Amino acid sequence: MKLATLKDGSRDGHLIVVNKAGTRYVDAGAVAPHLQAALDRWAECEPALQQLARGIDGNPGAKTLDPAKLHAPLPRAYEWIDGSAYIHHIILVRKARKAEPPETLRTDPLVYQGGSGIFLGPRDEIPLADDSWGCDFESEVCVVLGDTPQGVQAKDAGKYIRLVMLANDVSLRNLIPVELAKGFGFFNSKPATAFSPLAITPDELGGAWRDGRVHLPLVTKLNGSLFGNPDAGREMHFSFFQLIEHITKTRSFTAGTILGSGTVSNEDRSRGSSCLAEKRMLEQIDAGQIKTPFLKRGDQVEIEMFDESGATLFGRISQQVKAGTHGGFPVNA
Amino acid sequence: MKLATLKDGSRDGHLIVVNKAGTRYVDAGAVAPHLQAALDRWAECEPALQQLARGIDGNPGAKTLDPAKLHAPLPRAYEWIDGSAYIHHIILVRKARKAEPPETLRTDPLVYQGGSGIFLGPRDEIPLADDSWGCDFESEVCVVLGDTPQGVQAKDAGKYIRLVMLANDVSLRNLIPVELAKGFGFFNSKPATAFSPLAITPDELGGAWRDGRVHLPLVTKLNGSLFGNPDAGREMHFSFFQLIEHITKTRSFTAGTILGSGTVSNEDRSRGSSCLAEKRMLEQIDAGQIKTPFLKRGDQVEIEMFDESGATLFGRISQQVKAGTHGGFPVNA
Repeated sequence: MKLATLKDGSRDGHLIVVNKAGTRYVDAGAVAPHLQAALDRWAECEPALQQLARGIDGNPGAKTLDPAKLHAPLPRAYEWIDGSAYIHHIILVRKARKAEPPETLRTDPLVYQGGSGIFLGPRDEIPLADDSWGCDFESEVCVVLGDTPQGVQAKDAGKYIRLVMLANDVSLRNLIPVELAKGFGFFNSKPATAFSPLAITPDELGGAWRDGRVHLPLVTKLNGSLFGNPDAGREMHFSFFQLIEHITKTRSFTAGTILGSGTVSNEDRSRGSSCLAEKRMLEQIDAGQIKTPFLKRGDQVEIEMFDESGATLFGRISQQVKAGTHGGFPVNA
Repeated sequence: MKLATLKDGSRDGHLIVVNKAGTRYVDAGAVAPHLQAALDRWAECEPALQQLARGIDGNPGAKTLDPAKLHAPLPRAYEWIDGSAYIHHIILVRKARKAEPPETLRTDPLVYQGGSGIFLGPRDEIPLADDSWGCDFESEVCVVLGDTPQGVQAKDAGKYIRLVMLANDVSLRNLIPVELAKGFGFFNSKPATAFSPLAITPDELGGAWRDGRVHLPLVTKLNGSLFGNPDAGREMHFSFFQLIEHITKTRSFTAGTILGSGTVSNEDRSRGSSCLAEKRMLEQIDAGQIKTPFLKRGDQVEIEMFDESGATLFGRISQQVKAGTHGGFPVNA
């Protein structure tokens, strides 16, 4: 099942169910007004949404999906917890800011608590008020949790995963060193995150969803050219199941909590990167000099994942960087 | 105006308006089902809630408030951002974990992004699964924001503050050093936060609300004995207005975002402390030995603030530490 959220001027948007191809949809407002409401009453809503999903293809009442009208599946969420589960990414990015990887790199997952009150839709512009902040994209896989109690073990964690999405965890690289030096983690350096058009149930991934990982390449393009297509599965050192065990050590999580993988990264250089910071660090290592600039106004970032037949799974994140600040509070709030 | 949330088995509880004395209430369900909904449509809801507030005293239909039936005013929020604005607290607590205060201590506010999907009500037990975690309370003042755009300046920040509350930012001290050493800030070391029974509009504070600070003592009791009553105003180095300027540097915030002051702390020793970590550090400095243990099962923490006439402003946080994990997902979700 594939779910999406139409922008309707409200804070949480309007829930729709989309066909497998990501081209047509039916209204799901009779089941739940928005995705958070469906997640809040999942046991009751999920069968009704599945029934709608089965009836889209061949239904003359189904409408054509216009990706430009979509918000993030959850335009706001109660928590956005982002992991950093690809060891290769951690090592390269820490090297870039002259910091050591943590001693517990391979034994204790890295996660941070992200801002979750305002997300960007898959086609929303990335506002950049100051070019000197060093704006970067980070292409990631993430999962949406149902109610998840304290003390889950990795082996039991799969049942708490409701949906899978892609994310662009926009980062302001030049604000990170100063902020992390203060000791309290990211804040200003992590502006609003964007999500893929579609949030899909894990079964839509078929055999690519196994061991709490998505075993498919994550494709990132920058200004129309391939930037990277690392496999999201095999080098995810801590699986989503292990990340769930980690985050539930001391507390519980409400339905709709989003958990991210961190920037997808492979050791194999031919797979490219999922963020500019890695590429810049590799240039520094290889040639002693960084050539690739951070994002500037007008740059276009695209993030997408395809199944083995080449069909899009989550639709495409496609964002252009614009000058200015984040605006746009809901008009029909 | 004073607002509160009755536990009704739902995720967001039921909104009520409480009289100034904090003793009687009227139902506000006709205005908004819960506080988040009222904050989402504040321009429309606030006058209607104010009208209800004016009609409580002398209204025979008003009911007696039972604090045991209250949830946190916002049982879950889209963001919980906690500052650390009392310099004395930062210096003492960093000394306790043998870390240096940040170089920018007095020029750049410290804030962290907290977990906001599940909060504790003012009388809810503090679950403690493992005594070795070093459980501590932190008594704080916090504000609830309306829609707050990117780029607010401190001088204009007051208009985004809708409500004021107290918080118990429960901390697991022995998990903090390892977690902060990883570089990504707090996560496991910050379990669910509790809030005061009442969320009040700033005008309820009268002259004590000025310059973006609450100029009144914050009273903490441990097992019935006074633990501290430091003034929350004069040593709050960064005001709530300055904290808002800081957090809005790179992004916007949705209505219902909660922003905390950090642990209230005064240099004057006779005022005591608002957390165990400070007291322990002072014992270490004075006598070379820590006497005060962290919280153990059965300990009772009370946090309250009174106006100059001695009347309670926010009602009382009163929590007992219990063994075990956090439970309790909503039954009528």
